[in-house]
Amino acid sequence: MSSAMRPFQSTISIDEARRLIDEAVRPIERVERVTLLEARGRVLAGPAVAGVDVPPFSRAAMDGYAVVAADLAGASVEAPVRLTCIERVFTGQMPTRAVTRGTCSEVATGAPMPEGADAVVMVEETGLSGDEVRFLAAARAGQNIGRRGQDIQAGQVAVAPGAELNASRIGALAALGLTAVDVYARPRVAILATGNEIVSPGAALEPGQLYDVNSFTLATVVAEQGCTPLVVRAAADTIEDLTAAIEGCPAHDVLVTSGGTSVGARDLVLDVLKARGTVLFHGIAVKPGKPTAFGRLGQALVFGMPGYPTSCLSNAYILLAPALRKMAHIADPGRPAIRLPLASRVVSTAGRHQFYSVRIAGGKAMPAFKASGDITSMSQADGYIEIDSETEVVEAGTLVDVKFF
Amino acid sequence: MSSAMRPFQSTISIDEARRLIDEAVRPIERVERVTLLEARGRVLAGPAVAGVDVPPFSRAAMDGYAVVAADLAGASVEAPVRLTCIERVFTGQMPTRAVTRGTCSEVATGAPMPEGADAVVMVEETGLSGDEVRFLAAARAGQNIGRRGQDIQAGQVAVAPGAELNASRIGALAALGLTAVDVYARPRVAILATGNEIVSPGAALEPGQLYDVNSFTLATVVAEQGCTPLVVRAAADTIEDLTAAIEGCPAHDVLVTSGGTSVGARDLVLDVLKARGTVLFHGIAVKPGKPTAFGRLGQALVFGMPGYPTSCLSNAYILLAPALRKMAHIADPGRPAIRLPLASRVVSTAGRHQFYSVRIAGGKAMPAFKASGDITSMSQADGYIEIDSETEVVEAGTLVDVKFF
Repeated sequence: MSSAMRPFQSTISIDEARRLIDEAVRPIERVERVTLLEARGRVLAGPAVAGVDVPPFSRAAMDGYAVVAADLAGASVEAPVRLTCIERVFTGQMPTRAVTRGTCSEVATGAPMPEGADAVVMVEETGLSGDEVRFLAAARAGQNIGRRGQDIQAGQVAVAPGAELNASRIGALAALGLTAVDVYARPRVAILATGNEIVSPGAALEPGQLYDVNSFTLATVVAEQGCTPLVVRAAADTIEDLTAAIEGCPAHDVLVTSGGTSVGARDLVLDVLKARGTVLFHGIAVKPGKPTAFGRLGQALVFGMPGYPTSCLSNAYILLAPALRKMAHIADPGRPAIRLPLASRVVSTAGRHQFYSVRIAGGKAMPAFKASGDITSMSQADGYIEIDSETEVVEAGTLVDVKFF
Repeated sequence: MSSAMRPFQSTISIDEARRLIDEAVRPIERVERVTLLEARGRVLAGPAVAGVDVPPFSRAAMDGYAVVAADLAGASVEAPVRLTCIERVFTGQMPTRAVTRGTCSEVATGAPMPEGADAVVMVEETGLSGDEVRFLAAARAGQNIGRRGQDIQAGQVAVAPGAELNASRIGALAALGLTAVDVYARPRVAILATGNEIVSPGAALEPGQLYDVNSFTLATVVAEQGCTPLVVRAAADTIEDLTAAIEGCPAHDVLVTSGGTSVGARDLVLDVLKARGTVLFHGIAVKPGKPTAFGRLGQALVFGMPGYPTSCLSNAYILLAPALRKMAHIADPGRPAIRLPLASRVVSTAGRHQFYSVRIAGGKAMPAFKASGDITSMSQADGYIEIDSETEVVEAGTLVDVKFF
């Protein structure tokens, strides 16, 4: 009996792996049109140029009275100035009369300014007796007026290409009267579990079988990066079935497999990459997650993740997620790390970059790692720290950067 | 002509407003079932109890050989121990032969352990000649084995109620064989712009009209808090139309209006709240955003936001978002604040809690506020700081907490 096990020849560093991935990844060029209510988190593909002034007319910025400021020179509580109110202008209504010396018009916040008026006096600085308004303070020309085009001028770029659309940017697009905008398409990520032992949740387990975990953790990470996960059926451990499963994937920019990248006889993802595509690397000096492959198959980039749920997911966080964000044009690196003291000493493997789960308790980061295969070492933790390959021991009390799951 | 303007009698502090809102808000009790691929960001409504052990069988944690550890006592590179390999066990396959003294079975990572074996030796510590395997190191009983139930034991709570479902927790649910789980329903938030001047984007603007911005910014903030925005038509400034618009809203837990809460004659949201519901407060000492109302109408909480886009959106961030997260059972406060030095001096209004837009440049927070009505004062900024009502001046260089939009 001859073994087909193939030990690793060598591994590359995490930095080298990150560099090779970054070199291979290109931001998606495809564009699609979405309505403003669907635009949250999307990235604008072209400039949003204003076709109108915002606001489209000069308007009162306060509830009060539109006046000629010069009329109120010297007005005070002791010596109020009286003006005759000639009109009430509400929002959504055009004034019908011009304000001239000695007169004023009542204006609601947002109402168009009457012609002739050059200031608004807020209602709190006035008194009323019949049609006469008493003004208790002087006014400055231009006060309490929102000038036409003050916010955005017609012809200006209101939101620049590459902007991630959040509430205020979507608001700016709405202010222009737009109903839909062009955004970059979400990268499409096919997710393929491999392994004879893998069964989809819901089915009954036969002896020796396990439920598929990786398709679900990967799909979640993919969606978190603004990409579309396409979970396909698990492939059995034959070249034929794996090839058929890959060929059956819907159109995709990235293929992420789990399992089948280690040194066992049936680790076939690497064989498929070698035969039909390009291997850019295989084996990284990280823990967990060493047996990870990266390459190209047709137009798609391929991440061959280890089968162990935590190894697969930790590499999804540290390698796949940054690549997907770049493809999706998302500059924002996601949740920033929180710096906390480590609650107890961690011993790391020299020469391997380590991903280590932590729980936050009492303002400290408590090591929470159990074993590579244990999903609970992550699901019962709050986040993770990374320990570089040069570091063998991180003492209790050391400040560490925690990234949340 | 008699004015119907109604100046504010008084305002309450932001802390009092937050307290009144928190007192009124109840987490949603409704539950719905979602598939694991839809579960990201949802909150588990009941315990996920394991019906199976995870892993469901003891398995090899490494590619290598299953052995009786006692056989390898004293094995070394100089004095290898030789065992006869009796079987190759792949993942997804049950061993057919027990390992006895003098024998071993080749096992792939994840393959079920053969009976009799009590350790796995990794392939890197072995050599092969025919059916004989040379072991170059001693083994410890139990090494490189993932024991049945080591990750999760049948009967255990694998994911606790109230957990926000992220990748690893969804992975833990998949490991149990679950396909769907009960999560709290998303709070339903009806969004209603008011004002005769408000026109939906896409339509042509008549003189004096403006495009609806607030429905879009509010819908985005609502969706960011894990809630469902229900944008309904804008209501005109009549009690009749506003009442009809509210009655026409789909079933909702919260109603957010914009406009119609200030002191103008046509500020009708407050009138509707007074006549048909309860006003819990009206007027907050915040800038911008003073004319904000909060109350109850039937079963729904009502946030009456100011009509100005920035006032509306700033209050959505500081008042509405925390309330919605509580309703949605989300404990996570969202993006943490980043502490940065202020690039230039900010003068704040004494007695009013101030919301101030900032842009991040060169590691500093640059004040970016323009005017209450200007959406670009937020859309061209990165985030905001809050300045408490006691503070009148924040000097350049002061460390401020920036929250990102």
